[in-house]
Amino acid sequence: MALSMRFNVKSVFRFVYKSNSHGRLFKAGKATGTTSLPKAQVFSGIQPTGVPHLGNYLGALESWVALQDKYSTVMYSIVDLHSITQPQDPQMLRDNIQDMAASLLACGIDPTRSILFQQSQVSEHAELSWILGCLTSMPRLRHLPQWKMKSKQKNEGSVGLYTYPVLQAADILLYKSTHVPVGEDQIQHLELAQDLARIFNNQYGEFFPEPRALLSDTRKVKSLRDPSSKMSKSDPQKLATVFLTDTPDDIVLKIRRAVTDFTSEVTYEPESRPGVSNLVSMHAAVSGQSVEEVVRLAEGMDTGQYKNVVAEAIVQKLQPIRLEIQRLRADRGYLESLLAKGAEKACSLAAPVMTEVRKLVGFY
Amino acid sequence: MALSMRFNVKSVFRFVYKSNSHGRLFKAGKATGTTSLPKAQVFSGIQPTGVPHLGNYLGALESWVALQDKYSTVMYSIVDLHSITQPQDPQMLRDNIQDMAASLLACGIDPTRSILFQQSQVSEHAELSWILGCLTSMPRLRHLPQWKMKSKQKNEGSVGLYTYPVLQAADILLYKSTHVPVGEDQIQHLELAQDLARIFNNQYGEFFPEPRALLSDTRKVKSLRDPSSKMSKSDPQKLATVFLTDTPDDIVLKIRRAVTDFTSEVTYEPESRPGVSNLVSMHAAVSGQSVEEVVRLAEGMDTGQYKNVVAEAIVQKLQPIRLEIQRLRADRGYLESLLAKGAEKACSLAAPVMTEVRKLVGFY
Repeated sequence: MALSMRFNVKSVFRFVYKSNSHGRLFKAGKATGTTSLPKAQVFSGIQPTGVPHLGNYLGALESWVALQDKYSTVMYSIVDLHSITQPQDPQMLRDNIQDMAASLLACGIDPTRSILFQQSQVSEHAELSWILGCLTSMPRLRHLPQWKMKSKQKNEGSVGLYTYPVLQAADILLYKSTHVPVGEDQIQHLELAQDLARIFNNQYGEFFPEPRALLSDTRKVKSLRDPSSKMSKSDPQKLATVFLTDTPDDIVLKIRRAVTDFTSEVTYEPESRPGVSNLVSMHAAVSGQSVEEVVRLAEGMDTGQYKNVVAEAIVQKLQPIRLEIQRLRADRGYLESLLAKGAEKACSLAAPVMTEVRKLVGFY
Repeated sequence: MALSMRFNVKSVFRFVYKSNSHGRLFKAGKATGTTSLPKAQVFSGIQPTGVPHLGNYLGALESWVALQDKYSTVMYSIVDLHSITQPQDPQMLRDNIQDMAASLLACGIDPTRSILFQQSQVSEHAELSWILGCLTSMPRLRHLPQWKMKSKQKNEGSVGLYTYPVLQAADILLYKSTHVPVGEDQIQHLELAQDLARIFNNQYGEFFPEPRALLSDTRKVKSLRDPSSKMSKSDPQKLATVFLTDTPDDIVLKIRRAVTDFTSEVTYEPESRPGVSNLVSMHAAVSGQSVEEVVRLAEGMDTGQYKNVVAEAIVQKLQPIRLEIQRLRADRGYLESLLAKGAEKACSLAAPVMTEVRKLVGFY
């Protein structure tokens, strides 16, 4: 996932505005409702990793849906140019793009209220990335998370992997984005985008707004088999991860087998009881209740009984999404035309910005 | 200059085909004439450094003109995306692009027989560059000339400077180019393009031809003030460089002040008499004679007298070019529309290639 944002469901409207280039925090506060949408340009991207899991949904996608009610222009990009910084099988990539589009729609991304598009269909992303790369010093990228995390495993990564954050900055600045929902792990990448906006503006005159992070109280969904690590698509343990396309039987099985501990009652103590606390956390999130409410509800149950309740709540939440993904997946033509329309809208925003950029740089 | 090729005028038709990735030389031989143009795709690029000097003209541009008679598709790109890997003043860059276009036309690049265009007007260059960057390992670029030469001066260069050769590879492969006129200093960059064609083909199936170098017998024009170094636009000594826009008086002055030695007769001994040999070499090139013919002609003259002959020959050659540059420079509208038409033609070749590339990579 290129840019993601993590919330628990109760905190969806408690955004923290953060201009984090110097660690300065902007005022955090409750949003004022949805009557007048603030004039803002929200951008976020997600890698086409196929069908998302429950961690992606609760951590980012659900809040993406909520942002549609809160801001005037909201753009979500399936960032396939980013995905090829790691080796990809072309047929799998194609399928994953379709699956991600279907999943985003099924989760509630509404193409009439947001612009959903595939990054590679808008050529301006790569163009702006080249220009920004000419303003980025080589050492600036050396310690960014993407490179540090992923190049180590393979000793030396590709130029694409190294310059990944520059393309990310281009993704954001191309639409003169003002707000970017990000997870904590992406803060340093957003800082680069902020730096590049400043560097460009210093060199060519005020042009790009400095994009702000749209952070949230984060509550991460953990692996069902090892609650010390995040829920992950690539977890080798099959029962560790709940996917949005899991059947009710799958979900019941995975939750029943979830690692807990030897205490039978249900409490929320993430440090000392990560397994059962992860269940409580998921339960609260999918049912729209607070952790306290959920724990009260589970009084008198042992963890075995409680797992059935949690599984049922997750099934309730995911069942309509699963059915909608199934329906959409069967209609590739619809998905393709929808992405084409999204790309058209994105292009209509990107083209005038790039025209200005080219003029400022001196290309004409 | 991004890619350039150097000839003396007599050797314009003695191309050496070289697949240099493993140092293998292809058969070198005389071209067979111009009756049937070989089906080939020739691509070369030149940075918009403003009006070229005599070294550029004799080293590259004159042979570019000749290639128009020899190959079916010949493309020349003013590579402005490359130029911003070093800081540029926008207004100067704009002027330099126009001046380079005017100069190329004045030298004989004929837009009815070749495609002359500005790189930044064809977005596919940056797009393909991103994809190829994902196939390039970081260390692969570390020892390439562009980075080694230019990053040292400023300690650490930009991401653009480091990845410059990847964009160059994209420039070439985007048109499935088969032949690339290059100077010796660009051989390693062309090798990267060859490597990337192979890597792409291995991963996604046979698609890109491996572009071959179109080398030539090189005879480099030297600085008039220091014949041990190349003639250069950025030479701080004003009299070192003859520009295509120099007036006859400028040329006469610069040649008269050219550094020679204390021997009065005219001989061609580049090692021991670099100054006078440079004059002989330029004289031969601009007059279309061999070095031997020129030396015979200079028998009985001292170097002072000979300088007048050389200056006159250069004036003869450059006078029509200078006047044509002047005429074209005055007509920005014409130059702009000409570059726009060139970009249109380039796009019509680039777009179907990129469509195929996107399919192969798995974007759709």
